[in-house]
Amino acid sequence: MSSIWGEKIKISVFGESHGIAVGVVIDGLPPGIEIDTDKISAEMGRRKPGRDRYSTPRNESDDVEIISGIFNGHTTGTPLCGIIKNMDIRSKDYDAMKKFMRPGHADYTGHIRYKGFADYRGGGHFSGRLTAPIVFAGAIAYQYLQKKGITIGTHILKIGSINDEPLNPAKVSKDLLNKFRDMRFPVISTEIEEKIKDEIENARKDLDSAGGILETAAVNVPAGLGSPMFCSVESRLSGFVFSIPAVKGIEFGSGFKFAEMRGSKANDQFTADGSTVKTVTNHSGGINGGITNGMPVVFRTVIRPTPSIGKPQQALDISKMESTELKIQGRHDPCIAVRAVPVLDAAAALVFMDLLL
Amino acid sequence: MSSIWGEKIKISVFGESHGIAVGVVIDGLPPGIEIDTDKISAEMGRRKPGRDRYSTPRNESDDVEIISGIFNGHTTGTPLCGIIKNMDIRSKDYDAMKKFMRPGHADYTGHIRYKGFADYRGGGHFSGRLTAPIVFAGAIAYQYLQKKGITIGTHILKIGSINDEPLNPAKVSKDLLNKFRDMRFPVISTEIEEKIKDEIENARKDLDSAGGILETAAVNVPAGLGSPMFCSVESRLSGFVFSIPAVKGIEFGSGFKFAEMRGSKANDQFTADGSTVKTVTNHSGGINGGITNGMPVVFRTVIRPTPSIGKPQQALDISKMESTELKIQGRHDPCIAVRAVPVLDAAAALVFMDLLL
Amino acid sequence: MSSIWGEKIKISVFGESHGIAVGVVIDGLPPGIEIDTDKISAEMGRRKPGRDRYSTPRNESDDVEIISGIFNGHTTGTPLCGIIKNMDIRSKDYDAMKKFMRPGHADYTGHIRYKGFADYRGGGHFSGRLTAPIVFAGAIAYQYLQKKGITIGTHILKIGSINDEPLNPAKVSKDLLNKFRDMRFPVISTEIEEKIKDEIENARKDLDSAGGILETAAVNVPAGLGSPMFCSVESRLSGFVFSIPAVKGIEFGSGFKFAEMRGSKANDQFTADGSTVKTVTNHSGGINGGITNGMPVVFRTVIRPTPSIGKPQQALDISKMESTELKIQGRHDPCIAVRAVPVLDAAAALVFMDLLL
Amino acid sequence: MSSIWGEKIKISVFGESHGIAVGVVIDGLPPGIEIDTDKISAEMGRRKPGRDRYSTPRNESDDVEIISGIFNGHTTGTPLCGIIKNMDIRSKDYDAMKKFMRPGHADYTGHIRYKGFADYRGGGHFSGRLTAPIVFAGAIAYQYLQKKGITIGTHILKIGSINDEPLNPAKVSKDLLNKFRDMRFPVISTEIEEKIKDEIENARKDLDSAGGILETAAVNVPAGLGSPMFCSVESRLSGFVFSIPAVKGIEFGSGFKFAEMRGSKANDQFTADGSTVKTVTNHSGGINGGITNGMPVVFRTVIRPTPSIGKPQQALDISKMESTELKIQGRHDPCIAVRAVPVLDAAAALVFMDLLL
Repeated sequence: MSSIWGEKIKISVFGESHGIAVGVVIDGLPPGIEIDTDKISAEMGRRKPGRDRYSTPRNESDDVEIISGIFNGHTTGTPLCGIIKNMDIRSKDYDAMKKFMRPGHADYTGHIRYKGFADYRGGGHFSGRLTAPIVFAGAIAYQYLQKKGITIGTHILKIGSINDEPLNPAKVSKDLLNKFRDMRFPVISTEIEEKIKDEIENARKDLDSAGGILETAAVNVPAGLGSPMFCSVESRLSGFVFSIPAVKGIEFGSGFKFAEMRGSKANDQFTADGSTVKTVTNHSGGINGGITNGMPVVFRTVIRPTPSIGKPQQALDISKMESTELKIQGRHDPCIAVRAVPVLDAAAALVFMDLLL
Repeated sequence: MSSIWGEKIKISVFGESHGIAVGVVIDGLPPGIEIDTDKISAEMGRRKPGRDRYSTPRNESDDVEIISGIFNGHTTGTPLCGIIKNMDIRSKDYDAMKKFMRPGHADYTGHIRYKGFADYRGGGHFSGRLTAPIVFAGAIAYQYLQKKGITIGTHILKIGSINDEPLNPAKVSKDLLNKFRDMRFPVISTEIEEKIKDEIENARKDLDSAGGILETAAVNVPAGLGSPMFCSVESRLSGFVFSIPAVKGIEFGSGFKFAEMRGSKANDQFTADGSTVKTVTNHSGGINGGITNGMPVVFRTVIRPTPSIGKPQQALDISKMESTELKIQGRHDPCIAVRAVPVLDAAAALVFMDLLL
Repeated sequence: MSSIWGEKIKISVFGESHGIAVGVVIDGLPPGIEIDTDKISAEMGRRKPGRDRYSTPRNESDDVEIISGIFNGHTTGTPLCGIIKNMDIRSKDYDAMKKFMRPGHADYTGHIRYKGFADYRGGGHFSGRLTAPIVFAGAIAYQYLQKKGITIGTHILKIGSINDEPLNPAKVSKDLLNKFRDMRFPVISTEIEEKIKDEIENARKDLDSAGGILETAAVNVPAGLGSPMFCSVESRLSGFVFSIPAVKGIEFGSGFKFAEMRGSKANDQFTADGSTVKTVTNHSGGINGGITNGMPVVFRTVIRPTPSIGKPQQALDISKMESTELKIQGRHDPCIAVRAVPVLDAAAALVFMDLLL
Repeated sequence: MSSIWGEKIKISVFGESHGIAVGVVIDGLPPGIEIDTDKISAEMGRRKPGRDRYSTPRNESDDVEIISGIFNGHTTGTPLCGIIKNMDIRSKDYDAMKKFMRPGHADYTGHIRYKGFADYRGGGHFSGRLTAPIVFAGAIAYQYLQKKGITIGTHILKIGSINDEPLNPAKVSKDLLNKFRDMRFPVISTEIEEKIKDEIENARKDLDSAGGILETAAVNVPAGLGSPMFCSVESRLSGFVFSIPAVKGIEFGSGFKFAEMRGSKANDQFTADGSTVKTVTNHSGGINGGITNGMPVVFRTVIRPTPSIGKPQQALDISKMESTELKIQGRHDPCIAVRAVPVLDAAAALVFMDLLL
């Protein structure tokens, strides 16, 4: 089940970075969801490469051709296939690198896993480019969720040494999440946007790359989604999020801070607000026993620094089984965390849609 | 797919904390695995309640009755069912609590999810008792893995404010992991065992509970396990680990520390050690592009403090929709992280077996 | 996914004919289904061996112990496990036969598939005894369906050379199907019951066995169940029905008779009966394009004669790779088709419940 | 899981009859299968419409564009996507028919299932055109199987009242199956080819359509494929075959003839041919207990007459809920069974590949 995901809806992602196209088939969508293609384009635009010096110079329009599953502006209920052509391919950048196992990359593991037959150009099916069809699928899912009143958004909590203010998990507002979706560098403390840009620009100038942490929240998620044992909301979200290249950790609510907390502090007290049940605090990140409790769902994801850097590094020449200096010539993002923002929104949208159906 | 997990092997877990029994069916096991029942008992013993004041006083032998799937000491290849009777049931402890939604527990979310029909006694199917069948299934899987030379172990990295020394991910030894499996409080810095016990005892005396972080490693895992996109090793491990009650975060390799690292430091250089490929450092935790690279797989899991505490707390009386003081009378662990150690070993064993088949 | 079935509900069947017990875990049941255990016992009684000379003399009470998933008389929504002990085990009947590959049996294929490790006693996991947990699971499903107004029943259409009257697929009555469920030999032409008994008795006296065809119908199934392409109602029903030992063919509606029909005759004309859409004829067996159309769903299943017969046969002694005469000493049904009736009802109930959820 | 199929490999089929294209993503293919695109074209040619008066006049080249998953002439092991453009679309033929529920078609059931949002043009996702991607996927699978020595072929056993000679299931030759693949009307008794053509031509002239039975065999399938209970070879094959539009029945080996057989005749005696185990007869169709026994796998499939006929019929006008005479103007096959031949070969290839992996 390598590139297929889901229970009620299933998405099947295909394509390689330097092949003809990347795309996705979404199976199990309910019929009759009205689809606004402008909103899809806007989502694709948030992830698109080539926008400025903070992202890879690879230039792609990322227009999606919808092959099936939409008729008269609505989902039909039968499989929806969307295809995104690869336009700006420079495979020669990569041809010479076939035998070099770059540090931090999937070159070696892909070589072993696929017995030497993988399309190695630009990372092939491992490439971050494969997040384009995920953003497309997420844009479909999000239009469904929005009609149910659910809002999802992600901000940059940390890049290198620069920290944004964290969300208050008990009081996440829909407006703030919507604001995040409109920002190139979504942050709460707007004065730090420039500091983040500087941090990335410094990494780029040093022919290096930067890592980061993203914080995602979803509000108005109904209570009762998820199931013990293996379909906990945390299992479902983490299972998807770790499919996004470069993700190496995830935590929900107070996350790793729970280690130093006592139960009397960590427990979120339930309270009745008229006929609505709320919690006073939200250390649990909106999830108890793997099931949503109606409070904002909040999680944080760490994105490792882009493995591709301009600095010379030691790579393993697998044909000779010896190390050699390598200078990566391809195009790459100095901080992939920035472009991961809409991918996390998409991941969350797909998981919540799957749980809601 | 709530309580069924797996791709090649599938485990189906059943039971409630205060019902007749808990158990598991394991489907898809290869035929001919020699099973040592003493090793199974030893694993069950590691998780067993009632051993000392650091765990719940509930007294269970946790003997497993194997109903099917083993014949003449070997797996048959057809479904293996193991059942663990619930012996020390005191449901009256819980009967009065039916209408009270306890903070930090799944009472409220379970009430919504199961429309008021869930077996609420002792947490029902949400109970930590459901990890007993997981430890049993993991013990079967581990016997398979051991024949392949794989060793898995977990130590307590942190309880409250007490920290153990972290593993050196590039140099995890099989012996150390085996040592962890023999220790009641598996730690690297043996002098801190007493400090950890004090930390837990203090929480217990305060009628409170403590959280913690566990660090798990697997060595001699072959390179090439896992698949992009949705079957990454991180996706598979996290998907299982978040099924363990009280887990709220997971990180692989350098995890959340990647945020402050530059690519030039985060990238693990590949090197040839004779015909073997290794990495000099192991920030990636043995996983590149979602696939094992042959180095130790290392991850850390945070366990929230036990929600059940002796201290009076405010609970929501759902029948009146108002808060009320509640003193939890049931038996509970002052620090559930300790008993989660063998559960993480079992989770890792099941995931690696599933990936290897 | 050998012994696990289902999409929305999943059943995991375990056990061997001469092991401790057989059983099933049902995952994904909705909470709050009221369960009448007398109805379960009645269903188990329909399949039970040892009732008279038309079934195997093996004597089993087939009482089901429900381990989990039912609380206060209703399903909890968490996994329901039911276990049926094997009481009347005479494994010595089978011990001598370990090396003999009996004709028509799964001895040889099981030997290859499970590399010599299968529990060969009485057919092990291949045994018809494994239909007991299916009948139990079906009894749960049927209580759900009955509340939705759906009725399912099966009659014996043919045993050997004796034919019952076929159902009129356009006019199947609920009462007739209910009557089938109350009959030991469910037939439409009641005068042929004795002929069928004679046919079976003759086979038994000849130390031989008889085959048969069963006809199953479900009425009041709502229109709109099933999905193209791979979730057609025919795919789902046949996928389950071919899991019942000894089934070798299935046909829906006019089935194999369609080969000689012209389209003008085969097409069932739609007509409005007030606000209800019906078809005038029902050659399609209630299914168009893989989806129910609201008319009775009708299918026929062929059951091969029991492979176990008293007559001496040639078996392959796999230890010597030579044929040898064998006289099967174990107990067996002279016509397994009779006891397959409640199993087909159960299969249909599980499939329709899964499609309805 | 509507349009996704498979365990080890998964195929995800998409597209509508009169949309932009139809296609398929194949996930889980092993890396390194050498792919001969000429062989793919040949398979596509066998199913292609517009070849002569025995098939629909719709004219499609059915060239497959491979988007991903093949690199340097071999499968990469990552998802393979193939797309087949719809060229000869005449949607106006269908526009007027939106409100008419044609007899024998999925118009009504699709209308209910998809709440009025389905693409009704030419049957949409229900169309026989969706078998084109299945034939493509099957062509990939068959190249894999051929390297393992497995041969699959299908002949026309019956069209209307004309019968071909049946296969001798104990002695199916590879050459005969290969011959079938080269024939426009694959039959054993070559003198009946003209009779079959006449039967179809007569149906066409009568503005009607004909049904038929196809017989499929696979030789050199290794013993040991399939698993009890729910992964029997019969379950897997039937589950796929009933996904092919117009299929209404399937039988394995002696199939429905088992009803009149005694066990002593139905049982296939095992015998050793040197170190190879064979059966003397092959009533079981190469399958015992749901597992292949090494003998030819043989099954028969009935295909209903094409529901689209030129003759005026009564259709239901759903907008008025009344019947009305309708003359279908679209293009259609007078006997769809002929073009189903390569689809059955493809289905069998995909199932056996999935079982072998």
